[in-house]
Amino acid sequence: MAVYERATGKKIYVVDTTLRDGEQTAGVVFANHEKIIIAEMLSELGVDQLEVGIPAMGGDEKEAIKAIVKRGLKSSIMAWNRGVISDIEQSIDCGADAVAISMSVSDIHIQHKLQKSREWVLENMVKAVEFAKKNGLYVSVNGEDASRADNEFLVQFINTAKQAGADRFRYCDTIGIMHPLKIQEEIKYLKDNTNFDIEMHTHNDFGMATANALAGLMGGATHLGVTVNGLGERAGNAALEEVLMALKYVYDYNVTVDTRKFKEVSEYVSKASGRELPAWKAIVGSNMFAHESGIHADGAIKNPLNYEVYDPSEVGLERQIVIGKHSGKAAIVNKFLEYNVDLSPKDADELLVKVRELAVKLKRTLFDKELVQLYNEHEKNKSV
Amino acid sequence: MAVYERATGKKIYVVDTTLRDGEQTAGVVFANHEKIIIAEMLSELGVDQLEVGIPAMGGDEKEAIKAIVKRGLKSSIMAWNRGVISDIEQSIDCGADAVAISMSVSDIHIQHKLQKSREWVLENMVKAVEFAKKNGLYVSVNGEDASRADNEFLVQFINTAKQAGADRFRYCDTIGIMHPLKIQEEIKYLKDNTNFDIEMHTHNDFGMATANALAGLMGGATHLGVTVNGLGERAGNAALEEVLMALKYVYDYNVTVDTRKFKEVSEYVSKASGRELPAWKAIVGSNMFAHESGIHADGAIKNPLNYEVYDPSEVGLERQIVIGKHSGKAAIVNKFLEYNVDLSPKDADELLVKVRELAVKLKRTLFDKELVQLYNEHEKNKSV
Repeated sequence: MAVYERATGKKIYVVDTTLRDGEQTAGVVFANHEKIIIAEMLSELGVDQLEVGIPAMGGDEKEAIKAIVKRGLKSSIMAWNRGVISDIEQSIDCGADAVAISMSVSDIHIQHKLQKSREWVLENMVKAVEFAKKNGLYVSVNGEDASRADNEFLVQFINTAKQAGADRFRYCDTIGIMHPLKIQEEIKYLKDNTNFDIEMHTHNDFGMATANALAGLMGGATHLGVTVNGLGERAGNAALEEVLMALKYVYDYNVTVDTRKFKEVSEYVSKASGRELPAWKAIVGSNMFAHESGIHADGAIKNPLNYEVYDPSEVGLERQIVIGKHSGKAAIVNKFLEYNVDLSPKDADELLVKVRELAVKLKRTLFDKELVQLYNEHEKNKSV
Repeated sequence: MAVYERATGKKIYVVDTTLRDGEQTAGVVFANHEKIIIAEMLSELGVDQLEVGIPAMGGDEKEAIKAIVKRGLKSSIMAWNRGVISDIEQSIDCGADAVAISMSVSDIHIQHKLQKSREWVLENMVKAVEFAKKNGLYVSVNGEDASRADNEFLVQFINTAKQAGADRFRYCDTIGIMHPLKIQEEIKYLKDNTNFDIEMHTHNDFGMATANALAGLMGGATHLGVTVNGLGERAGNAALEEVLMALKYVYDYNVTVDTRKFKEVSEYVSKASGRELPAWKAIVGSNMFAHESGIHADGAIKNPLNYEVYDPSEVGLERQIVIGKHSGKAAIVNKFLEYNVDLSPKDADELLVKVRELAVKLKRTLFDKELVQLYNEHEKNKSV
């Protein structure tokens, strides 16, 4: 996949962490063969870098990472590490070409989680980065809880990482506390004061992960961190499919990726993670192109442009006009045309009453066979 | 409920449309008694205005609206209408104190859906507004597809509505095509050129409904349109619980509402709508305070502040440290303390290996009884 800013042609990098932060979700465990398939799908899609696990966990986790590395995918394969040399040794052992080195950067985390000092954080980060670079790895330095960190310390942290040879900084809104305008200004400040590559890693605790990731891009970030379906701890991360479709249609970026595979990838990850997708999941939910209400169905029948931004086939979905309580005459007439029945306005009105009654009774939309049955009863009553 | 901008004390109005736009979702049908309970819950919560249905649909729909009006709730009761006198007559018949009058305002809709002209839209809007005001109703004029409308026409539309006596303008991002920075600028432009009350009505097609609603507020909107669980057509609307918790914790607004009822309201609407909530639903999902990964669980045990913005009881949830593949030593030790077992570091390490093996095998987190069983086996093997 490639994503480019249209005006400048500047490339935007997509970093997927479904197999690391996605699997870290409480209750989610991918089998190793599922991890390999997901990595292949994402590489095929053209994701630039895949963060595939935590080598320091050892055992099965390491085996999966090694197996993914062995596939020789087009994507860069990144492994996640604490800022500890022994973690990075495990990543090297797995054959990853890139490492993420995570350091807490907020005073809250430094005091309450690490029980250390800012100096300790800087020193240990430099040691880890230098060790990784000496071993020829691409290095992302992750600022855990960056959104609650002191801004001047963040600049110091990033510039120190840069000097130690790191390749980019991952800005983690670990607890999802940012809003778009604020994060955009924040990233611009960091970019202006460090001139370093920045990855957005946002969480959805207040429902704003996707908007925050994209706002960070507007502020000067170069990398977008995502997961398929937004899988991730608590409310999850920014969703791959939302970020990319928004870049294409809301922000007018040049996205040259086969988005038609989104539904397929989403379904596979949903199944493997045991997290069934709700019908209303943005972009890939089964309801995304389902129109029931009279006004919407009528509008969509007259011209899909009225209620759709892009054709459903673009993400592997299909348009559905569903018939239920909120259906109007146009949808009923249109539906019966599928069965070669051209309803008169009077018949359509009368059927609509029956349709609404049955939908209210069943508390759902109707199946075609139920519609046909209603029609047959209606015709029968007429002939009596 | 009351929501106030902290610096100025300015009141922000919350308008819930779970029973109108929420029910308009393909496949969702509330029974009338469920509608009444939902209206009561929302009024109890303190939502300023409830949009409860479409009187022009007649039948059951009208009965539900009448029944809600009869409860004499604290909230204003609004009914939804096309820009047609006969629709508004039905709303009056139901006893609503407020009406939303919907008019398409984008050229795409005016040409392809209405097949009319801008002048036709203005004329019919004025007729409808004047009729409603003559009948003593509070009037919101809805700009359907406002986000694709010509800006100058929008200003003309709003000023014409204002002159005809309307009380506010609902800005509908009908197809969810906006991003936060853009919508904030747009609302500021409309506010500057009309000085009129504006309601945000945003859709989640690209995952940005909540961020867009809040960005509109920052641009000068006075009313926030929401639904419980974000229920609504396609990917849904901005979610009540996300918007209010974000206002409180991300934007630092003064939100004096009993948010502890959010989980209860959310569960009731989920059940009545037949839309099961995913575990990772922002704010009210069962996973929101579940920590599994070693680093997160350890941090949350040391101090919840490390990974939580507010206490789970604030939204009616509970904190859970779940034990699974990603658990670390601290979580295991902590869990067994609940059973009065103080694990030695060596026992904890050995048990952790067994825990991870079983979690990978079962592809899920472990129940307490499974942990106790692993412990008993471990002790037995030691004594052999």
